[in-house]
Amino acid sequence: MQEKEVEIVRILRAGPGNEKKYVSGQALSSRLGVSRTAVWKHISNLRKMGFLIEASPSKGYSLKGEASFNGVEIRSALTTGTIGKKVFFYPSIDSTNIKAFELARSGEPEGTVVIADAQSNGKGRIGRRWESPPGVNVYTSIILRPDCPPQAAQNLTFLSAVAVAEAVGAVCPGRPTVKWPNDILIDSRKVAGILLEMDSEADRVHFVIAGIGVNVNMKAMMLPDPVRSIATSLAEKSGHEVDRTHFVRTLYASVEKWYKIYLMEGFGPILSAWKGYFDAEGKPVKVISFNRSISGICAGVDESGALLVRDPAGAVVRIISGDAERG
Amino acid sequence: MQEKEVEIVRILRAGPGNEKKYVSGQALSSRLGVSRTAVWKHISNLRKMGFLIEASPSKGYSLKGEASFNGVEIRSALTTGTIGKKVFFYPSIDSTNIKAFELARSGEPEGTVVIADAQSNGKGRIGRRWESPPGVNVYTSIILRPDCPPQAAQNLTFLSAVAVAEAVGAVCPGRPTVKWPNDILIDSRKVAGILLEMDSEADRVHFVIAGIGVNVNMKAMMLPDPVRSIATSLAEKSGHEVDRTHFVRTLYASVEKWYKIYLMEGFGPILSAWKGYFDAEGKPVKVISFNRSISGICAGVDESGALLVRDPAGAVVRIISGDAERG
Repeated sequence: MQEKEVEIVRILRAGPGNEKKYVSGQALSSRLGVSRTAVWKHISNLRKMGFLIEASPSKGYSLKGEASFNGVEIRSALTTGTIGKKVFFYPSIDSTNIKAFELARSGEPEGTVVIADAQSNGKGRIGRRWESPPGVNVYTSIILRPDCPPQAAQNLTFLSAVAVAEAVGAVCPGRPTVKWPNDILIDSRKVAGILLEMDSEADRVHFVIAGIGVNVNMKAMMLPDPVRSIATSLAEKSGHEVDRTHFVRTLYASVEKWYKIYLMEGFGPILSAWKGYFDAEGKPVKVISFNRSISGICAGVDESGALLVRDPAGAVVRIISGDAERG
Repeated sequence: MQEKEVEIVRILRAGPGNEKKYVSGQALSSRLGVSRTAVWKHISNLRKMGFLIEASPSKGYSLKGEASFNGVEIRSALTTGTIGKKVFFYPSIDSTNIKAFELARSGEPEGTVVIADAQSNGKGRIGRRWESPPGVNVYTSIILRPDCPPQAAQNLTFLSAVAVAEAVGAVCPGRPTVKWPNDILIDSRKVAGILLEMDSEADRVHFVIAGIGVNVNMKAMMLPDPVRSIATSLAEKSGHEVDRTHFVRTLYASVEKWYKIYLMEGFGPILSAWKGYFDAEGKPVKVISFNRSISGICAGVDESGALLVRDPAGAVVRIISGDAERG
């Protein structure tokens, strides 16, 4: 179905070879080998994806404009085999994670992605909000179906962090860092966040949704006050606008690469790569974990990715859930 | 809303004091303090719950019959504080776990239960089917919202097994046993199964659905061939029909009791109780875990509930996911 839409855009862009630039429904129908009703459905999907298509009963369809960031462009740009094999793009949606969760429950396969230009109810970790203005950023959720118990899902949190950090580093000068477990920072300011959600039995995962929000061309100015001072974007740090379609391609390629490594070699290489982005070891840290606050010196992470904090008495506390702030 | 329905049933059962046994919509409306449209909605809900209610434009409503197993009866019978505070009853549904999952995603609180007389697509563990004929058994799913990481959800598997075993033991002679992790057997035949599903972030659970299927009055004869020889029911073992409403009350009370113990004292008392029902230690066992088969002698369970199997070479293998069969 999405292939038909890519095809229609190609035909409409080329135009019919005369000045009027209209292609009749009949012509589309016969070139695509589908009914005129199907053509109409594809046109209506394309409009939802950000294409401005005029329909005239006598002349047919004409492409009058298109959003620069849209599902057809993204799909055409992808070089991945699995991640993004199916793209659900929305100019605006409540939350890409909610949509991806629903799609996964209804059986969509591994690698299916949801991507939106804006979110009205973007979700952050621990019930927080993720600011999601239109026209500037990337909000995407990827369906993964690893055959593992739920505790292994935390591995994918680190995997996502590594993949995002790598994609960020590829378009932006300066080394990104990770804040445990999975915020991506540049110069100590947040440029991306990850929300991993899953549906599982007690001992095996049905699917994982890796939700990724990246501040691409946003100005920190656009954010409300409490987060403004701690956030930044790829454009602010690189000094120029970043092409979102290109960035998404880089991001999905990076997720696919690290996911393959994870499936073949396990968590070891993921954690090693993650440690390469982690710079808080030896520094003061404060963690809120299930309503308990732990302060001390960060002693790194253990082999499962749990945060180790040396408390003032010298004991090392192992933390599997929470948010680590500079102490 | 459900209270209004219980109230309507009470009024209709009592009748208006004359032979005709019709109560006018106006009378119901004023006694309940709600609009006549609201009355109509409650009546329509009651019909879905298994009440046969006749409506006459001139005379009003009359209760002509009721299923013996229905949401109003169950709700009236409950003695629990949290579990079953809200009851969603269905004469037939695809799967109580699917419904409870949807309800929990839309915000229904802890303790909300879904219960059905029949399931068209009853779910067992690992994608298996749970046979769910109408009129004889209990199929119920309970929404729990513990504040814990996903690996702790396995604790609730053991908790559910203990609660079900206790409820089974209360109505049925002979000591029930548990098969790791959470089937309930009597005389080595399966009388109940549990499917725990959850929705979580990588490091914290949003909610858990404890799905419980109990063979109450079913005859093993009613089952298809492959499961017939390994299943039984409370009625077959006790020699008489068991009142399902009474059993549900016992079951929810048991779940509530053990859940309170878990929240106050942690997993220790749950695991101790579970071990009291576990009789496979020292016996040959075979486990399929993520496509790997492990055979050996059962060496019990560790403090997290993982199964320990001593393989022929003498090494003890720790298994967190799978199905343990007699070796």
